[in-house]
Amino acid sequence: MHFPSITLTLPIWVDSFVINYGRVFPDDLSRMGFVTKLAEQNVLQKSGGPFAAAIFCNKTNSLIAPGVNVVVSSCCSLAHAEMMAIGIAQQKTASFDLGPDSELFTSTAPCAMCLGAIPWSGVRRVVCAARDEDARAIGFDEGAKISNWTDALRERGIDVRTDFMRFEGKAVLDLYSSEGGKIYNGRNENNNL
Amino acid sequence: MHFPSITLTLPIWVDSFVINYGRVFPDDLSRMGFVTKLAEQNVLQKSGGPFAAAIFCNKTNSLIAPGVNVVVSSCCSLAHAEMMAIGIAQQKTASFDLGPDSELFTSTAPCAMCLGAIPWSGVRRVVCAARDEDARAIGFDEGAKISNWTDALRERGIDVRTDFMRFEGKAVLDLYSSEGGKIYNGRNENNNL
Repeated sequence: MHFPSITLTLPIWVDSFVINYGRVFPDDLSRMGFVTKLAEQNVLQKSGGPFAAAIFCNKTNSLIAPGVNVVVSSCCSLAHAEMMAIGIAQQKTASFDLGPDSELFTSTAPCAMCLGAIPWSGVRRVVCAARDEDARAIGFDEGAKISNWTDALRERGIDVRTDFMRFEGKAVLDLYSSEGGKIYNGRNENNNL
Repeated sequence: MHFPSITLTLPIWVDSFVINYGRVFPDDLSRMGFVTKLAEQNVLQKSGGPFAAAIFCNKTNSLIAPGVNVVVSSCCSLAHAEMMAIGIAQQKTASFDLGPDSELFTSTAPCAMCLGAIPWSGVRRVVCAARDEDARAIGFDEGAKISNWTDALRERGIDVRTDFMRFEGKAVLDLYSSEGGKIYNGRNENNNL
């Protein structure tokens, strides 16, 4: 009996999107600007859910890894945007601990899984645009998160900024919804539509 | 700029371990017996942390996918045993929703990340051996889980059985600890030892 590897790959358009975007990322505005544009592009390209994330390095003000949601195209419920960004950054740096200069930006506040993944990743700061309730408003389940999740991260030495460019993050969710994008959740009868 | 894929692969010994184990899995005892032996083997082979998991199919009483912790060898903090089992099962079945006949068995109760991953995976039942506190007792952080996590799964239509073969699950944790196995956590100064 042979078991396959798990292989999770960004959509093919991401490489050229990043090259063409061609910026340095010195501050929260430039970083979240990139992430919300990346999420929007994932919707326009119809390559996945309306979510993007990225890991940035504070020392060099550079992008380490982008991530977009590829759950449906990868046949993998683990392939949320934050998980993709974390996993790709770790492959690039050949370390399971991204270290003190790394920050995670995400277009929507992390679901329960991605929230749980953050402390293991080694990032020291998380910045979120749209809220859980914005994702729930278009039908995505964010899972059973502890109510004081920002405190739980801070207790583990991880700084958190929420509601930063919420309007832009939410606009991507609403765009996806208005285009009739697939709402997939585990145990959802609509998954096989 | 080109970004790598995330590729997560089981240790090479797993295929032959499964073939040699050669059982059907009609009940919780046979399933958790396999999972705790798999965790023990991961320690003896020094291929990762003292954790294993597996997805079984109730219709055929067969193993769909095993998983072991390969965080250190994969340079990936996402590579917990439950995540490996879920991801491999989804690759095998080419579906992000494992469906109503699937069950997850795990040698230690899921950490915050793996707990969050369970509802998205489509499994309908979770069986756990060792407790969170058994993992914490040897130095692993289980993350900020909601206190009533079994209820949160049940509310999402997922049945849960805890403390099943806890002794066997805990024995693997203690074996790892007694052998001086690496305790890795995000932001842990010992990670680079």
